[in-house]
Amino acid sequence: MTEKSKLNQDLQDERQRIPFNVEAFTNWYYGGEANVKDKRYLEKLIINDPELKLDIDMSYMSHKEKYEEAVRRATIALKLFKKLQQDGFGGADFVGKILLPFSSILKQGSPISLQFSMFLPALIKLGTPEQQAKWVPKAMNLSIIGTYAQTEMGHGTFIRGLETISTYDPQTKEFVIHSPTITAYKWWPGGLGHTVNYAIVFAQLYSLGKHHGLHPFIVQLREDETHKPKRGITIGEIGNKVGFNTVNNGFLGFDNVRIPLDQMLMKNAKILENGEFVKNQSSVLNYGTMTHVRVGIVRDMGTLLSKAVTIAMRYSIVRRQSPIDPKLPEPKIIDHVTQQMKILPAIAKVFAIKFAAENLMRMYLTVTSDIERGDLERLPELHALSCCLKAVSSTEAVHAVEVCRLACGGHGFLTSAGFHDIYTNCTAAQTYEGENTVMLLQTARYLIKAWSQALSGKTLPPTVKYLQNYKPSSGRSAWDSSVRGILIALQSTTAGKIALAHKHIEARKKTYSPEEAANQTGVELLRVAELHCQSFLLQSTIEMVEKSNVPPQIAEVLRDILELYAVDLAIRFLGDLLQFVNITSTDVEQLQQRMETALKTVRKSALGIVDGFDIPDFVLSSTLGAYDGNVYEGLLEAAKKSPLNQEDVNQSFDLYLKPFIKSNL
Amino acid sequence: MTEKSKLNQDLQDERQRIPFNVEAFTNWYYGGEANVKDKRYLEKLIINDPELKLDIDMSYMSHKEKYEEAVRRATIALKLFKKLQQDGFGGADFVGKILLPFSSILKQGSPISLQFSMFLPALIKLGTPEQQAKWVPKAMNLSIIGTYAQTEMGHGTFIRGLETISTYDPQTKEFVIHSPTITAYKWWPGGLGHTVNYAIVFAQLYSLGKHHGLHPFIVQLREDETHKPKRGITIGEIGNKVGFNTVNNGFLGFDNVRIPLDQMLMKNAKILENGEFVKNQSSVLNYGTMTHVRVGIVRDMGTLLSKAVTIAMRYSIVRRQSPIDPKLPEPKIIDHVTQQMKILPAIAKVFAIKFAAENLMRMYLTVTSDIERGDLERLPELHALSCCLKAVSSTEAVHAVEVCRLACGGHGFLTSAGFHDIYTNCTAAQTYEGENTVMLLQTARYLIKAWSQALSGKTLPPTVKYLQNYKPSSGRSAWDSSVRGILIALQSTTAGKIALAHKHIEARKKTYSPEEAANQTGVELLRVAELHCQSFLLQSTIEMVEKSNVPPQIAEVLRDILELYAVDLAIRFLGDLLQFVNITSTDVEQLQQRMETALKTVRKSALGIVDGFDIPDFVLSSTLGAYDGNVYEGLLEAAKKSPLNQEDVNQSFDLYLKPFIKSNL
Repeated sequence: MTEKSKLNQDLQDERQRIPFNVEAFTNWYYGGEANVKDKRYLEKLIINDPELKLDIDMSYMSHKEKYEEAVRRATIALKLFKKLQQDGFGGADFVGKILLPFSSILKQGSPISLQFSMFLPALIKLGTPEQQAKWVPKAMNLSIIGTYAQTEMGHGTFIRGLETISTYDPQTKEFVIHSPTITAYKWWPGGLGHTVNYAIVFAQLYSLGKHHGLHPFIVQLREDETHKPKRGITIGEIGNKVGFNTVNNGFLGFDNVRIPLDQMLMKNAKILENGEFVKNQSSVLNYGTMTHVRVGIVRDMGTLLSKAVTIAMRYSIVRRQSPIDPKLPEPKIIDHVTQQMKILPAIAKVFAIKFAAENLMRMYLTVTSDIERGDLERLPELHALSCCLKAVSSTEAVHAVEVCRLACGGHGFLTSAGFHDIYTNCTAAQTYEGENTVMLLQTARYLIKAWSQALSGKTLPPTVKYLQNYKPSSGRSAWDSSVRGILIALQSTTAGKIALAHKHIEARKKTYSPEEAANQTGVELLRVAELHCQSFLLQSTIEMVEKSNVPPQIAEVLRDILELYAVDLAIRFLGDLLQFVNITSTDVEQLQQRMETALKTVRKSALGIVDGFDIPDFVLSSTLGAYDGNVYEGLLEAAKKSPLNQEDVNQSFDLYLKPFIKSNL
Repeated sequence: MTEKSKLNQDLQDERQRIPFNVEAFTNWYYGGEANVKDKRYLEKLIINDPELKLDIDMSYMSHKEKYEEAVRRATIALKLFKKLQQDGFGGADFVGKILLPFSSILKQGSPISLQFSMFLPALIKLGTPEQQAKWVPKAMNLSIIGTYAQTEMGHGTFIRGLETISTYDPQTKEFVIHSPTITAYKWWPGGLGHTVNYAIVFAQLYSLGKHHGLHPFIVQLREDETHKPKRGITIGEIGNKVGFNTVNNGFLGFDNVRIPLDQMLMKNAKILENGEFVKNQSSVLNYGTMTHVRVGIVRDMGTLLSKAVTIAMRYSIVRRQSPIDPKLPEPKIIDHVTQQMKILPAIAKVFAIKFAAENLMRMYLTVTSDIERGDLERLPELHALSCCLKAVSSTEAVHAVEVCRLACGGHGFLTSAGFHDIYTNCTAAQTYEGENTVMLLQTARYLIKAWSQALSGKTLPPTVKYLQNYKPSSGRSAWDSSVRGILIALQSTTAGKIALAHKHIEARKKTYSPEEAANQTGVELLRVAELHCQSFLLQSTIEMVEKSNVPPQIAEVLRDILELYAVDLAIRFLGDLLQFVNITSTDVEQLQQRMETALKTVRKSALGIVDGFDIPDFVLSSTLGAYDGNVYEGLLEAAKKSPLNQEDVNQSFDLYLKPFIKSNL
């Protein structure tokens, strides 16, 4: 940390008592000194860029001004991005490394954000070699700006329901793209409103009177020189949102727009000049890509939560409120045990989500290389795991971020506290890239199938192997209160609930179709998918903590975190556990006591941990969480930036208030 | 409903199957036909007011423009308010009746909102008869605009910690008001920023070198004619917030500001000319006022939630997504059981919160009249109940509103969906007027005391009488699965947990001070306060449903709602119940089945119920929840209001994007 301003005394005192080396923690957390060096180099580059003007508070701007400032900042950021890439910065994990500092340039997102995350990958994934040769360099160079237009106003999760039509016309060798209804309007793609000039558009393909399913097309939407919408294109932005107001999410309608034959992206299937449809290959690889996106979401949830806990933890040391003992002065609010209960388990969740994301990533790499060798066996397992982790990590993050905000009292409600942008980023992830309930149901379907296989004696893949050990007939299992014991208890509870849900589906199949039977068992299915995921989060945390390649001081911190995480989990899911595990009242009291002990222990390391996340002030962007702890000075300074505070008297006094008061005299 | 536009066919079909008379429901819900008539008269008045221009979407404005529009609308609304009052509209419940339609004029709140809710009541409560004669008519007339300045930047919940100083100067017979630090700056009062010209300011009183505690002063902040801040006053707004951005919350610092002796509000205590301090009466009545405010919050949470469920329920009928059976068309999303599980329990919560608020209000009236007769016995009970109900109802509402938003998928994230303003209104209530954790701890303190009294054989007041029946030694109690049985199970669980927490505090008292012992038991204390409150919510719902003065059709709907509410509660708190009640695995399976049956039953009435809440479109203010169900047309129409969509090409293209693209060619 390079901040030189005067430090808040309470923070300074606490920092002197951190029981481990913070820099060593940071190095471990980011996977080595070299990564930390890269990270700090990049941060310095951004904070020192005079053109970016990061000190302007965009929250006071009008919607239109925000967009215009966003385009300005996005183009500067992309120049920086290209330069870094050309300089060979960051290596293979380039995008992973730049994400957090870059996102601080536009806290509500960039209108050109889909260029590298969706547009370019889709061109590569969906285009033939010739198409790639034509389009990829343009996209790479940013000489065209694109987005990915799949979702429609009336159709999200169920993509086969999309309505946009692309009809091949063999006379002119063109496709005619058309939106038959307003529910067919593309809706949501980032940058689509006023920013991009190209899009990859998904449409139902028709040729020679036959329907061939959904296919991608690259379509120019706006003129190169003037940026005016091309003929037949209705386009605009979808309006104000809870967050992401600089992403310029757009809508798009087609009135019989014609594009040439070679603008269907034809890697997977093609139309010949005569209109004949030819399928090339299966789209099994798409699963892999979707999984990769979800791994990224899980990792981001951990990162976003690390920002929220940093703010709440630092503020809880600076803020003094409500005496515990009326004879003593007001304590730091972190000394209230109820405050510890809000923030410390949230800190533990940062680790669990991080470890689970890393675990999932390893599995993804294994399975991807399996697939390349033609072995698809573990694909369903990977898919199931990525679905529930995306759902559970985003939901856990949202709840924990909200708890952190509320833990900061009224001040947490101020935009300058920084929680709102974190919250909107997390809550949006509950819906995008696969709505969470749908995700959990996909996991549940896999678990039910795995249980059927277990019943018929088949060997199960690693992450569901625990189902093989479960015997429904043997009653409540014994309770082992160790951390590993908590994991086993969670797993046998999950197994027990899967067996029950399976039984209920089978019973309902006598009256209903299999699909309706599953639908009617939906509430149970959601619960088993969540429990399965919680077990995986705990297991990942245990595995990472047990790895011995960390300095001893840090190993101790991680063990404390694990204890807190496991005990908190056991208490949260006690209602489920009690049904399948023999936990007595005394055991429950002991869990409660361990929780209290774990809070006391982690409280000692907590400031060191959040400092060790090493999030610089401009990235944290919070008056309450600044490294120097000058919370109140920061709040006042932020308030003074309000345009309303630039003048003593607002014109509304003369316009409305004075005449009103006079009329009442 | 008077909307004449074409109705969505699915909604129309469902409306024809509503199994009860919706108008009869509305009349019951609002306490009689006369109230409904008043309500609709008022709604018509507002929607037809040409000056209000409610169709302007303020979400696109800059922060400053929003404020200016807010002042304009607030003055028009207040003229309407005064006229209605003069016409004798609404009777005793005037404010209750106008609240919802008036709040739709400024969804993020009014900059003059504290005039009648805080400023005027404080003048009446805190002023002597002479002071009231001087100030009340001015406040009543709105010839002065005031706010209530208590909270400071560094001090919220613990008001004794406030730092602002008022020193009496017997030479000039004035008070000198001063902010010794920036943490002493008043921070948060609504309208304080640029709107009000007066405030009731709380400060630590010093006279003749002695400190006399906290007292209220009425202070003029801005000049009558020019609205310029008076000498020594530093004033402004506190900046952008998660919501309530038109309330103009402000900060206020004093640099030795002098006010005359008669501007200390002296009903409870006074300073004589010579500087002598005289205490007049106890401030026990303040408890009553705080309770009254909290009753209002509980009621508002129910009202806000009724808006959210209306939106989510109607949208869930219009929206079709994801086939249950792949051979059939996409169903209404409400036909997915997982969707029912999101929305229907939220509908049940509207009733529980409404009934609990009414129950609490009756208790408040009883206790207030007791107090007037000098009987303070039930005051602590009332206080404890109002604290936990404020906390639990706001938290339940926030969660349910969020679930409703997420149940609307991506579209729920749009401002035009209407959830965000509901959410911010609910979540702010988790903090204001007593932070929720502090509230729950106050309830818990009362419960622990009540348990001590039960142990010593004392008779307890009605809402904690259940503690008398609890015997810690008698093991798990028998399970009765009826709705009343669920209540009894919740109560004995609460009692069991109170007894445990009491035991743990007593044990800790051997090592720690009583206060620190309670602090270390904080996590348990929060849980018992929540459980106590959940029992009261269920009990209130049972009592109201069992009242027979409702038409039979509606009585049936209420019984269904009660069944759903009770079973949902039992499942949610199963982890607690299983520790104290003898619930077998079979019992748990039965609860699950009852839940599924209850969902099926309530699903049939759910549209009728939300229609029966009778929230007109301009109050609901949601593209997804409009009465006619024309969701997609509404979404597009709302998007087209964006200022960005008023031109094909935004200027940022020529300014930034085009030069950027050219540089990449």
